[in-house]
Amino acid sequence: MRAVRMTAPGVLELAEVPTPEAGPGEVLLRVGAVGACHSDLHILDAAAGMFPTPMTLGHEIAGTVEAAGPGVDGWSSGDRAAVYGIIGCGRCRACLRGEENRCRVTPVGGIGLSRDGGLAEYVVVPASRLLHVGDMDLTQAAPLTDAGLTPYHAVELARPRLRPGTTCVVIGIGGLGHMAVQILLATTAVRIVAVDTNVAALDLASRLGAHHVVQAGPDSVDKIRDLVGPPPDGADVVLDFVGAQPTLDTARQVVATGGQLLLVGLAGGTLPVRPVADEPPTVPLETGVVVPFWGTRAELQEVVALARDGRLHADVQTFPLAEAPEAYEALRRGDIHGRAVIVP
Amino acid sequence: MRAVRMTAPGVLELAEVPTPEAGPGEVLLRVGAVGACHSDLHILDAAAGMFPTPMTLGHEIAGTVEAAGPGVDGWSSGDRAAVYGIIGCGRCRACLRGEENRCRVTPVGGIGLSRDGGLAEYVVVPASRLLHVGDMDLTQAAPLTDAGLTPYHAVELARPRLRPGTTCVVIGIGGLGHMAVQILLATTAVRIVAVDTNVAALDLASRLGAHHVVQAGPDSVDKIRDLVGPPPDGADVVLDFVGAQPTLDTARQVVATGGQLLLVGLAGGTLPVRPVADEPPTVPLETGVVVPFWGTRAELQEVVALARDGRLHADVQTFPLAEAPEAYEALRRGDIHGRAVIVP
Amino acid sequence: MRAVRMTAPGVLELAEVPTPEAGPGEVLLRVGAVGACHSDLHILDAAAGMFPTPMTLGHEIAGTVEAAGPGVDGWSSGDRAAVYGIIGCGRCRACLRGEENRCRVTPVGGIGLSRDGGLAEYVVVPASRLLHVGDMDLTQAAPLTDAGLTPYHAVELARPRLRPGTTCVVIGIGGLGHMAVQILLATTAVRIVAVDTNVAALDLASRLGAHHVVQAGPDSVDKIRDLVGPPPDGADVVLDFVGAQPTLDTARQVVATGGQLLLVGLAGGTLPVRPVADEPPTVPLETGVVVPFWGTRAELQEVVALARDGRLHADVQTFPLAEAPEAYEALRRGDIHGRAVIVP
Amino acid sequence: MRAVRMTAPGVLELAEVPTPEAGPGEVLLRVGAVGACHSDLHILDAAAGMFPTPMTLGHEIAGTVEAAGPGVDGWSSGDRAAVYGIIGCGRCRACLRGEENRCRVTPVGGIGLSRDGGLAEYVVVPASRLLHVGDMDLTQAAPLTDAGLTPYHAVELARPRLRPGTTCVVIGIGGLGHMAVQILLATTAVRIVAVDTNVAALDLASRLGAHHVVQAGPDSVDKIRDLVGPPPDGADVVLDFVGAQPTLDTARQVVATGGQLLLVGLAGGTLPVRPVADEPPTVPLETGVVVPFWGTRAELQEVVALARDGRLHADVQTFPLAEAPEAYEALRRGDIHGRAVIVP
Repeated sequence: MRAVRMTAPGVLELAEVPTPEAGPGEVLLRVGAVGACHSDLHILDAAAGMFPTPMTLGHEIAGTVEAAGPGVDGWSSGDRAAVYGIIGCGRCRACLRGEENRCRVTPVGGIGLSRDGGLAEYVVVPASRLLHVGDMDLTQAAPLTDAGLTPYHAVELARPRLRPGTTCVVIGIGGLGHMAVQILLATTAVRIVAVDTNVAALDLASRLGAHHVVQAGPDSVDKIRDLVGPPPDGADVVLDFVGAQPTLDTARQVVATGGQLLLVGLAGGTLPVRPVADEPPTVPLETGVVVPFWGTRAELQEVVALARDGRLHADVQTFPLAEAPEAYEALRRGDIHGRAVIVP
Repeated sequence: MRAVRMTAPGVLELAEVPTPEAGPGEVLLRVGAVGACHSDLHILDAAAGMFPTPMTLGHEIAGTVEAAGPGVDGWSSGDRAAVYGIIGCGRCRACLRGEENRCRVTPVGGIGLSRDGGLAEYVVVPASRLLHVGDMDLTQAAPLTDAGLTPYHAVELARPRLRPGTTCVVIGIGGLGHMAVQILLATTAVRIVAVDTNVAALDLASRLGAHHVVQAGPDSVDKIRDLVGPPPDGADVVLDFVGAQPTLDTARQVVATGGQLLLVGLAGGTLPVRPVADEPPTVPLETGVVVPFWGTRAELQEVVALARDGRLHADVQTFPLAEAPEAYEALRRGDIHGRAVIVP
Repeated sequence: MRAVRMTAPGVLELAEVPTPEAGPGEVLLRVGAVGACHSDLHILDAAAGMFPTPMTLGHEIAGTVEAAGPGVDGWSSGDRAAVYGIIGCGRCRACLRGEENRCRVTPVGGIGLSRDGGLAEYVVVPASRLLHVGDMDLTQAAPLTDAGLTPYHAVELARPRLRPGTTCVVIGIGGLGHMAVQILLATTAVRIVAVDTNVAALDLASRLGAHHVVQAGPDSVDKIRDLVGPPPDGADVVLDFVGAQPTLDTARQVVATGGQLLLVGLAGGTLPVRPVADEPPTVPLETGVVVPFWGTRAELQEVVALARDGRLHADVQTFPLAEAPEAYEALRRGDIHGRAVIVP
Repeated sequence: MRAVRMTAPGVLELAEVPTPEAGPGEVLLRVGAVGACHSDLHILDAAAGMFPTPMTLGHEIAGTVEAAGPGVDGWSSGDRAAVYGIIGCGRCRACLRGEENRCRVTPVGGIGLSRDGGLAEYVVVPASRLLHVGDMDLTQAAPLTDAGLTPYHAVELARPRLRPGTTCVVIGIGGLGHMAVQILLATTAVRIVAVDTNVAALDLASRLGAHHVVQAGPDSVDKIRDLVGPPPDGADVVLDFVGAQPTLDTARQVVATGGQLLLVGLAGGTLPVRPVADEPPTVPLETGVVVPFWGTRAELQEVVALARDGRLHADVQTFPLAEAPEAYEALRRGDIHGRAVIVP
C-alpha cells in the first residue's frame, strides 16, 4: 500500500510498504481521512532519535474497519470509526482513570507518534482506540480527534469557572480556536471574546457566535480590559491557541484573580509566574496556569456527540495522499485555512 | 490603648491611640495574641500609597469579645474567637461562594492590611470575621488564621491529586511548612518528602511524620527524583513555601505530568511556563501552576477543627506588645523559630 | 402600608400595617413584584405553630431600594434588586461555603417564611440578600428568585453528568419545569425529553427547544425507554418537578445506572430505595437520589445573568396586591399558566 | 484442576475440570487466595437463568501469573497480582472514564459473576484486570479487591463531605465495615461513630481508632443524636453496611441536611424518600442517597497502596479449597469473623 513516511528527520516521502496486519486486540482500518497537524511539523523538525524512523505520520484519523485481529470484540468489517491517537501504559494512576494524556509511564506517544500513523491506505490500531462515528463524513470525523479534542479538553479543564455571567477570551481563531468557540457556545452560557490578528478569522468568530471580537495589536490588553473590567476582575478563562510572547503577555494581563489560563499553542513564548508581594504579580493570585495536552477517550466521545448533533463543524481543505507533502508545506507557510485533511 | 502602628512606609511605632468602638455589624475584640507574619515586612517595605498610614499592623489575630455593635447576632462578651483577616466585597461571584480570597472587586485587603489590625490591646472587626475557638490557647489560635490557613488552602487546591500512593514534596519546613506536614498527615495518606537547607527543620519534619527528608542543595532534584522516579512520573504535588529561584527550579523539575505546583513562598523567584513541542518543557504537560492566596472562612473553620482535635500544633515564640518591633527585626534576620506571636 | 398576611393557619388577609424600618445591615425595599408560589399554599395549610402568625407572605421578590439602614454599603435609593429569600445562620460549615440552603443551624426559614415577606408595598431585608438586576422588568426578576433558582440549583447538582451525548428527562413543564428546559438549553448540550400530562405544556416545551416530548400516561416508561435504551443504560438525569407517585415511579424506572434523580416536586409520592441483590433494584446501582432545596446566592446571580442575557424568560400572569388571595385560589385550582406574579 | 462450581441454582460442588488457557489479552493466574463473599450466597440463591451454570464461583482473587496469552504486555510468569473483578463493555461513557462499576452496556457481571471465577487452582482473567501487589501476603491481597474496594469506593463518593470537623457514622463493623473505619482514619480527619449490635465488633472498632461506639438498639437514633446534635445538623455521612430496615431507619434519622447516605449492605430493607413540604421529611433536604456498587480499578490501586503502606489490614480466617462449601455455610450462619478466605 502507499504511505507517507518520515524516512529521516525532516524527510517526508510517499512510499510503497506492505499492508500491515492486525495482531491480538488490534484492528486494521482502511483510512478515510487524516488531518495534517502542526505537531507533525514539530515531529519532522525534531532532532534525530526523538521519533522513530522510518515512520508513517498522521495521528488525526478516521476510517472504516477492514478486519479485526484475534480477541477483538465489538468491531467488525465496515464499521466507521474515529481513532483516539494516544496509547498510554494502561496501568498507571492516570490511565486507570481514562486520562491517558497524563500517562505516568509512557512519554508522549501513540499512533503516528511512536508507531505508524494514518497517512496511508491502511493503519493498524488497538481496537480500544476506536470510537463509532456512525454515518458522519470521515473528513469531518478525522479533525475531531485532535483539532476538536484538544480545545474540548482545554475547555473541560476550565469548565468549573465557565458559569453564566463569566467571560472567556479565545486567542487565535484558527484550526483549534474556531472549534473552541463552537464548543463554548454549545456547552456553556459564557460571553466569548475572540482575539486574532487576522480580520477574516475574527469574521469567522463572529459568524460562529462570538460575542466580541478584538483585533490583536499593541492595545490588545486595553481593548479586552474595556470589556472585562479592571483588576482584580477580568476574564475568568483565557484559552491561548497561539502561545507566542505577545499572546501569552496578553493572556496573563487580562485574566481575573482566581481565573484560569490554558496555554494550548506552542509558538515558543514563555509565561513567567512570579510569586511576589511587593509588586504587581505577573499572573493574578489564585489563577491557574496549565499547558494542556490533547484529551481523553471519554472527551473524544463527547466531541463526536457534539458533531453528530450538528453543533461542531470543522472547516476543512482536502488533499489526496500523494499531495500530503505539499499540504504540509502549505501548512508551514500559513496557507491553510481551517484544517488540511488528506484523503487516501 | 496601646497599638503598634506603621506611621509611614518602613516606620513601626508603639503609640497610644483611642480605643475603637464597634459599629453596626462589628465586634470589639480584646486581643489575646497576634502572629508576626513575613507579609507584615512586605507591607512595611512597600512603596508609599500602597497601604494606608498610620495603620495598626497585625492580621493573624485571636482574642475575646469585649462588646458587640448594633445588629450583631451570635456573639457576646467573653466569647473566644479567631479572626478571619480578609474582607471581600461580599457581592462578587467569588465572595458569594465564600471565596473571599478571590474577591473580584477588592484588591488584597482586610484587617491589618487596609484597616487597623490586631497589634493593639483592642481591635474592631466585622462580626462575620469571627470563628469560635472554644477554650483553645489563644497563642495557638492566632497562628491558625494565616500560618495554618494558608498551607491548608494550598493543600485543598491540590486535594484531588493527594490520593493514596501519591507523593507530595514540601519545600521549606518553616512557619507554614511545618503546618503543611501536619495537615497532610491528618487529612491524606500521601507519602511526604520534606525539603529544606536546614537540618533542624528536617529533623522537625521527621518528628512530625514526614516519610523522607532531603537536604536542599545542588543535587536536590536528583535526590528527589530517586524517590519519585523518572519523568513523566514524579511528585504528584509540590508545595513551595520558599519561592526562591532554586526552590522553584527544583519544584518544576520533580513534579509529575498531570501534577500540581503550589507556589506559596514569596522569595522573589520566577517560574517560567514555556509551552513548546520540540524541547523538554519547563513544566510538565497537564501540570497546574498556581500562586495561592491565604484561604477561605470555611477552610479556617476546618483548620480550627484540626487544632481542637489535637492534630495541628504551631511552634510559637511569644513577645509582649512593646517588643513587637524587635520581633519583626528578628523575623527579618531569620532568627525566629516557628511563629513569633505577640501577646498584648 | 398594605400587606397580605397570614393571620392564622389557613387565613390570608389584606391588612393595613405600619411601614417597617431598616435596622443595622438592612434595606427597606419598595416591592415591585412578588411571585405566588405553591409553597405559600403549603405554609397556609401547615399546622399551627410551624410558621409565625401574623406574617406577611411572599418569598419571591424584586423591588427598588427605598432606604438603607446603618452599616449598609453598596446599596442606595433607587437601586433595583432581586431578593435571595433564605437567611441562614451565617456561621455553620454550609453557610460559610455560601450554601445557605443547607444551613446546619436554622431550619427552613427566611423572608416570607420566618419573617415578613414581600406581599406588601414595602419589605425589609438584610442587605446581603439583594442582587442587582439592572433595568430588568421586575415581574421577570421576581420569579427568578425561586421558579428560576430552584431548577437552576437542581441542574447544578446534576451538572457533572450533563455532558454532550447524555439525556435529561424533565417531568412537569410548569412554572419550574419550563425554566429548567431553558436552563438546560443555555448551559449544556444534552438531549432533553420533556414529560407532562398536558399537551399545551408539551407544546411549550417543544417551542422552547426540548428535543423530545412524551405525554405522561400508563406507558410513560415504555415511551421514554424507547428514547434512552434498555437498562443498565437510560436517562443520565431525571428532574421530577411533580413528585407524585406515578412520576416518581417513572423517574426511577428510566434513569440509568450511575445516573441522578432530582426530586423537586412535592406532590406527596414516595420513592423507595431498596438495596438488594436478588431482585431488580428499585433504583439503579450508583444512581444518586436527592430532594434539592431552593439554591444559593451565587446560583441566583447566575440565574440573573442568564435572564439579562435573554436566555431565560418566565411566563407570568400578573395580579394587583388586593387580588393576591384570588391568585392563590387560582393557583390551588391549577388555573394559573406559568407563574402568578403580584404587583403591589 | 479442582474448582468449586455452582452446577445449578443453589448447588455448590467441588469438581475436576480442565485447566483453562489464556486467550488473546488474557492471563492464566495460579490462584493464591479467594475471599468468600456474601454476594456469592446471593448468586447461589438467585433464580435459574440469572447466572450461568455451571460456573466456578469466586470474585475476590489474588494470585501469581502462570502464563500470559498473545498480545499481553507487562505481565510475566511469577508476577503477583490482585484481580479487579468487573468486566465492563470498555466503550460506554462510564467505562471510558474508568468507571466500569457503572457500565451502561453490561449488567452486573465479571469474574465469578458471568464467567468462571477464582475458586479453583487456576483462573483466566483479562490482563487489564490485574494490579501488582508486590510481596504482599495473598490472603491479605484477595479481600482488598471487594471487602476493601467496596467501602473505599463508598468513602470516595462521600469524600467531598468528609472534611475536618465532620462526623461519619459507620453502621455494621463486619468484613466491610472494619475496613471502612481504617480507610476513614487513613485518609480523613473526620470523627467516626461506629454502630453495631455486637459488642465484640464495637471493641474492634475502638481498637482500630473509632472515636465513639454505639451499640445498636431501639435507642440508636437518640444515642447518635447526642453525639451529632439536633436537626438540621447531624452526621455528615452515614455508611450502612447492613441495609436492614432498622439500620436504614437509623441512617436516615441521624444524617444532616446536605449530608450523604451510602447504602452498601443488602439485607433487604427499604429507605423511603418522600419529598413533602407539610411534614418532616423522611430524608433531610439536600441529602444524597446512593446504593454504591463495588468500585473502580483506580480505586483498587489506591486500596492496594494503603495496604502496602500498612494502613489497611483485613481480619481473615482461611480455609482450604475443599472446605469452601463449609466456609459458605458458616458465612450464611454468621459464624465467620472478619473475612473467610479460601486458599486453593
